Amino acid sequence: MEPETGTDPTAAVLAANRAFYDAFEASDLDAMSDLWLHDDTIFCTHPGWRTLHGWGAIAASWVALFRNGQNLQFIVTAEHVVVAGDAAWVTCDENILGGGGSGTVAALNVFVRRDGQWHMAGHAGSPVARQGQD
Amino acid sequence: MEPETGTDPTAAVLAANRAFYDAFEASDLDAMSDLWLHDDTIFCTHPGWRTLHGWGAIAASWVALFRNGQNLQFIVTAEHVVVAGDAAWVTCDENILGGGGSGTVAALNVFVRRDGQWHMAGHAGSPVARQGQD
Repeated sequence: MEPETGTDPTAAVLAANRAFYDAFEASDLDAMSDLWLHDDTIFCTHPGWRTLHGWGAIAASWVALFRNGQNLQFIVTAEHVVVAGDAAWVTCDENILGGGGSGTVAALNVFVRRDGQWHMAGHAGSPVARQGQD
Repeated sequence: MEPETGTDPTAAVLAANRAFYDAFEASDLDAMSDLWLHDDTIFCTHPGWRTLHGWGAIAASWVALFRNGQNLQFIVTAEHVVVAGDAAWVTCDENILGGGGSGTVAALNVFVRRDGQWHMAGHAGSPVARQGQD
């Protein structure tokens, strides 16, 4: 059954959020490219990295990450969606398996709606410390 | 000269972003409280922490951080603002002095406009690794 993404913006944003992790898991640059806006306003903060801006730099980062071929698996939990007009953001936990270990990244994904479609406008991931808090 | 925050949303969002760091530097819980929305949609990811949701948990985190009394100083650089209707987000680098050291945090701050005022709807900070990238 197709999700009724046309009538429920929260469901549509969640679907876009899942499409992001599907593309990440599949190392699918075409799917990433379809999902993201292609302009200079977009941002991406990979864990430990400085923030990248613009599709050129962000696409290059996906190429580099996908070349590493770590076959990461994402178990995404604790999704919280906020829709504010034609903008939306999702916080979630990326529980990551692969790459020789496991860990959790606290993620924030920003989306904007253009012509009825939700596109990725930003991604930020912050590694969760294994013990205690700051 | 007063900034013309009423007519330029980007300037108003930047002013709100600076107010956040002023409140953080001053360990000023009242200023933090004035700045943030007080509802369950807001989020806050301190570096290394899991994401907190709602004003109750987020206020408690500021109380805990301010009690540490580290007298952090923030030199905020590389501010990029995106305004999308009544929502906006800022990416910036927090160059932090104090707490026995220094470091950079890649930050993402989300704002929403209510009754003409920009309020904080989310904060996420990710530590920048000192050497290389993932």
